[in-house]
Amino acid sequence: MARINENFLKLKAGYLFPEIARRVKAFNEANPEKAARLIRCGIGDVTEPLPEAARNAMKAAVDELGSRDTFRGYGPEQGYDFLRESIVENNYSKVGIGADEIFVSDGSKCDSGNILDILGPNNRIAITDPVYPVYVDTNVMIGNTGEADEDGRYEGLVYLPCNAENNFVPAIPEEPVDLIYLCYPNNPTGASATREQLTAWVEYARKHDAIILFDAAYEAFIQDPEVPRSIYEIEGAHECALEFRSFSKNGGFTGVRCGWVVAPKTVFGTTETGKKISVRDLWSRRTSTKFNGASYPVQRGAEALYSEEGKAQVSELITHYMENARLLREACESIGLSVYGGENAPYVWVACPEGVSSWEMFDRMLDEAQVVITPGSGFGAAGAGYFRISAFNSRENAIEVCERIKKNLG
Amino acid sequence: MARINENFLKLKAGYLFPEIARRVKAFNEANPEKAARLIRCGIGDVTEPLPEAARNAMKAAVDELGSRDTFRGYGPEQGYDFLRESIVENNYSKVGIGADEIFVSDGSKCDSGNILDILGPNNRIAITDPVYPVYVDTNVMIGNTGEADEDGRYEGLVYLPCNAENNFVPAIPEEPVDLIYLCYPNNPTGASATREQLTAWVEYARKHDAIILFDAAYEAFIQDPEVPRSIYEIEGAHECALEFRSFSKNGGFTGVRCGWVVAPKTVFGTTETGKKISVRDLWSRRTSTKFNGASYPVQRGAEALYSEEGKAQVSELITHYMENARLLREACESIGLSVYGGENAPYVWVACPEGVSSWEMFDRMLDEAQVVITPGSGFGAAGAGYFRISAFNSRENAIEVCERIKKNLG
Repeated sequence: MARINENFLKLKAGYLFPEIARRVKAFNEANPEKAARLIRCGIGDVTEPLPEAARNAMKAAVDELGSRDTFRGYGPEQGYDFLRESIVENNYSKVGIGADEIFVSDGSKCDSGNILDILGPNNRIAITDPVYPVYVDTNVMIGNTGEADEDGRYEGLVYLPCNAENNFVPAIPEEPVDLIYLCYPNNPTGASATREQLTAWVEYARKHDAIILFDAAYEAFIQDPEVPRSIYEIEGAHECALEFRSFSKNGGFTGVRCGWVVAPKTVFGTTETGKKISVRDLWSRRTSTKFNGASYPVQRGAEALYSEEGKAQVSELITHYMENARLLREACESIGLSVYGGENAPYVWVACPEGVSSWEMFDRMLDEAQVVITPGSGFGAAGAGYFRISAFNSRENAIEVCERIKKNLG
Repeated sequence: MARINENFLKLKAGYLFPEIARRVKAFNEANPEKAARLIRCGIGDVTEPLPEAARNAMKAAVDELGSRDTFRGYGPEQGYDFLRESIVENNYSKVGIGADEIFVSDGSKCDSGNILDILGPNNRIAITDPVYPVYVDTNVMIGNTGEADEDGRYEGLVYLPCNAENNFVPAIPEEPVDLIYLCYPNNPTGASATREQLTAWVEYARKHDAIILFDAAYEAFIQDPEVPRSIYEIEGAHECALEFRSFSKNGGFTGVRCGWVVAPKTVFGTTETGKKISVRDLWSRRTSTKFNGASYPVQRGAEALYSEEGKAQVSELITHYMENARLLREACESIGLSVYGGENAPYVWVACPEGVSSWEMFDRMLDEAQVVITPGSGFGAAGAGYFRISAFNSRENAIEVCERIKKNLG
């Protein structure tokens, strides 16, 4: 009798984005006239064209596959050297990370779930609240949690509340934990972490032999030169942190699919008997066995984002989205709302007016302004009373959203 | 203290293909003159150009991403409808599989490992011997086995020996098992399974509420119209089988990456308390949480393999490789070796001359003929005394390999 993994049954049915899709669909069907006005600022998906440098490189790579002499079949599972080396040169040249510590993948969502394959079942796991739901759900699926309570908090996880008081960077926990998910610039709050805050986390991790899973998918949006762009700018991080990065949001690769994991050779996990095992070597073995490399034309496209034209085109995209973020911030501030994020991240995080819940705000924005936002409570109990506006949109739409916010919420 | 998944430590260090690579490298360094003559028939990787239909479609898709109006970001995690529908129309129109039972992925290797995410830890798991190593290693990693013995057999797996006596299709086991990995046309033996053999397996699975994980990555190479191309041609398979398919070997997508899983709505697994749970729904949830869809241009390339030109181009590739297989078979037969496979699969499986081991044969072929083959014992204890020749090569190379086999082994 084939048995299923019963941990899946602990997952809450109402995953955030399907629930949003359901409500939007119901609204559109009930209000066909208003539906035509709908502007989506919900899901964090890019909207602007793929940079020309990437497109040209991808097409050239496809052409290469059309000739026997330049055809390539299976590539190295860990990624082609040309891309691993470009990644190092353009991101880690000053922080001592080597190309053999870079593992190219088909995206950060996969990586941040798959990483649990190599980690043990007996870890105490800390996540921020609010949080990107994939961290939580993949821990539920693999059996690292108990059941969820009424607020959606799973037994066995250590929740680190992030709120306006701590600038959405969690305090160091009093209890020891073994794995810590940190995401900065943050999804969903748009907060960034200072050098001092990250240093405190690295010191904590080293003290407790913990590992930090550092998601820096939004690194490209950092404007402030004082904000660290990689966890490896922090002394000691090479001994305790893995970093997750993506081409999705800088290069517009959400549909093209490419990302990477940094697994330094100096990060070790522990066996029951206290033996130290290289996390990089485990990840490499996992990658060899369960992955066959990212698509070759995609890897060439990613490489091209680091060319001179590629960098200029990425820079234009970032400027575009961050100007949207600025406009959205100002619109919300102008009507007296408390606004966070949007300065080093493409997400603006807004406190709902007093007494209005996240989902009430969602429904009100949909009904009154025909703007789809994301209710903060969908990211965790501590997100209640907030909503997220994504800056991923055309300028025209962003300006229109600002107008509607001022008109309908002002 | 961060704990690792200690199951990884049970994995044998000498994985087959790295060991081959090591020996080839050592040989080349020691014999620079002979090295220039080397022909690789080891790893099952395609060599011929990507079909033009796929290339054109991929480039057109990349162009689409260059315009705001036709840009696509995140796609459906389960694959675009255009591809799911094409897959059904071209593979399952007569066997009652729906597009919503097709899950497009970045390749079969990933799928055949990831499927264990949704299955429980208490299953008795049967694999054929010899076998594609990924089935075994992913079970080791997730903790479904004990340690390996001297022959490399892991405690807790049920090994089903495949040999010349049973035509490399295993007998139904006497003990009940819960999960059965079957791969036909087979890697590595090149064997195909008859309708009667598959029917017996389906009946067994239904009797024991077991699930068959049916890997049909080599379906396109079937020449005999009597050989089933899908497990769903067998009555009752919709209630007990998942099927894994790939564009790697028919469309030459080993470096492009696309495959799919068929998860019929009528396949159920069981909880500890005997509740039936839809495997399709679990796989869909897993896919939504841990995957972000295959690359959009890649999905368009895969779709194009089903166009009229695409089908003609795939057919030419298959004819090319199968003619290689025929030549290789005949060469081995002409010198009195016992030869299997190569008629409905791109692999020729050859018994080593009396008293010669698989690795001795590997070394001899390398040293005397400068041909890289794969030692049968690398695929499992029951593969000892055999070697695999891959038909994935140019015609010129295949002919040269045939000459060398006749000259050096004859």
